[in-house]
Amino acid sequence: MTPDTAPLVSLVGAGPGDPELIAVKALRRLQAAEVVVYDRLVSEQILDLVPAGATRIYVGKANGQHTLPQDEINALLVKLARAGHRVVRLKGGDPFVFGRGSEEAAYLARYKVPFEVIPGITAASGCTANLGIPLTHRGLATGVRFVTGHCRDDIELDLNWESLADPETTLVIYMGMANVTRISERLIAAGLAPDTPAAAIAQGTLPEQRICRAPLAALPKTAAAAKLAAPVLIVIGRVVALADALAAPLEAPGRSDARTRSASHG
Amino acid sequence: MTPDTAPLVSLVGAGPGDPELIAVKALRRLQAAEVVVYDRLVSEQILDLVPAGATRIYVGKANGQHTLPQDEINALLVKLARAGHRVVRLKGGDPFVFGRGSEEAAYLARYKVPFEVIPGITAASGCTANLGIPLTHRGLATGVRFVTGHCRDDIELDLNWESLADPETTLVIYMGMANVTRISERLIAAGLAPDTPAAAIAQGTLPEQRICRAPLAALPKTAAAAKLAAPVLIVIGRVVALADALAAPLEAPGRSDARTRSASHG
Repeated sequence: MTPDTAPLVSLVGAGPGDPELIAVKALRRLQAAEVVVYDRLVSEQILDLVPAGATRIYVGKANGQHTLPQDEINALLVKLARAGHRVVRLKGGDPFVFGRGSEEAAYLARYKVPFEVIPGITAASGCTANLGIPLTHRGLATGVRFVTGHCRDDIELDLNWESLADPETTLVIYMGMANVTRISERLIAAGLAPDTPAAAIAQGTLPEQRICRAPLAALPKTAAAAKLAAPVLIVIGRVVALADALAAPLEAPGRSDARTRSASHG
Repeated sequence: MTPDTAPLVSLVGAGPGDPELIAVKALRRLQAAEVVVYDRLVSEQILDLVPAGATRIYVGKANGQHTLPQDEINALLVKLARAGHRVVRLKGGDPFVFGRGSEEAAYLARYKVPFEVIPGITAASGCTANLGIPLTHRGLATGVRFVTGHCRDDIELDLNWESLADPETTLVIYMGMANVTRISERLIAAGLAPDTPAAAIAQGTLPEQRICRAPLAALPKTAAAAKLAAPVLIVIGRVVALADALAAPLEAPGRSDARTRSASHG
């Protein structure tokens, strides 16, 4: 095990948001951090785990307008490590599932800065578990795939819709809310049934969690009406229909955990 | 938060094997368990976290021959919960990514047994992070998909090879070693380049971890020669080629973590 005093950049996955869903090792690194570099996908509840004496550097949407460019984040990490700080680069979910953690790792490697990658529970797993939505299920989904629904504002989201329109595979779309209409239309045009069960999960695993469930064709309208706050995860596939059956028992009286399940079902 | 004394079946994801990669909540449930029901994908190191006074029930490959049938596991969980025990059903990885956790959840729901699902870091994330293999990376992989390579002994593995043979998507195959030759051949026949980087990771994140890396066409031979022990995760895609660059800095002298990286690169 690495002594917690060695200089090092730890690329740490914070998990889906609930501070109880962070890994033991990630929590330990966070508690030993001198500097924590984070962005907007990290929940307040996770940030509460950062020690009071540690420096926090926010690199997402500064002044409500801009995100620090990736090359500046890379350079910042090297600079902090070379100054002898124990640095935690904290990312929502898992550092190597979207989120550009591997670009930061590549930069650190190039500059010979010791680093490690500590995985986290990615949103696809984290945000569905307490809703009773399995990612795979015999007879309903033989596999699962993750894509990002995010693209530059000035271009149209371009995915391989024919390949994604597979009723046997659960489709999880990260950061897809801005393109939910196009996603729904294109998947249906590519052959996925309009009544395929779908869900949009906002701020999953947090007390603020909200869920919209609707057939794929109706998801854009339902999700728009709900005015979901980012981050939103979209899940499309037959497994979403299991939520009613698999979510029931925790709603039993006396189980205060139920608050995490009492979100709006659109 | 659920009081740790309430009767409940917790379907808990143990993560990839390293006990440091279990979630805080999962660890807490494990430490409060009276009965732990587990199978062969749970590592010894994770089992060491189970309190000494708790009853352990092994339901995988009893006598080296048979696995307790799924319906008997389901019935066992209900019986234990109704007897008033705090039961943890411990699964390798994430309960809702393969592993049939949702079948157990459905059964518990049907019998009105209170349960909860605590997600874990699935093997795809857990076993690749410390090897420097990101699941997505700009310009190399726009998404990732998980399938199972396991099927009944008497039938041929039947997947949608054309859809899977996508150079833009990282392909992760759980439990695929028995079918690695067929997987390699079919993907290449479906158009994936024979020199697509691939890796087979055995006992990922544990001290016993071993890695075979080879071009897709050579993976079956390389992996067979290495006699990898289960569980084995197969990763196929351009991102595997990043491992050399992204794994380097942790090999620096004086970093004892390096033992987890010193596995054979076939």
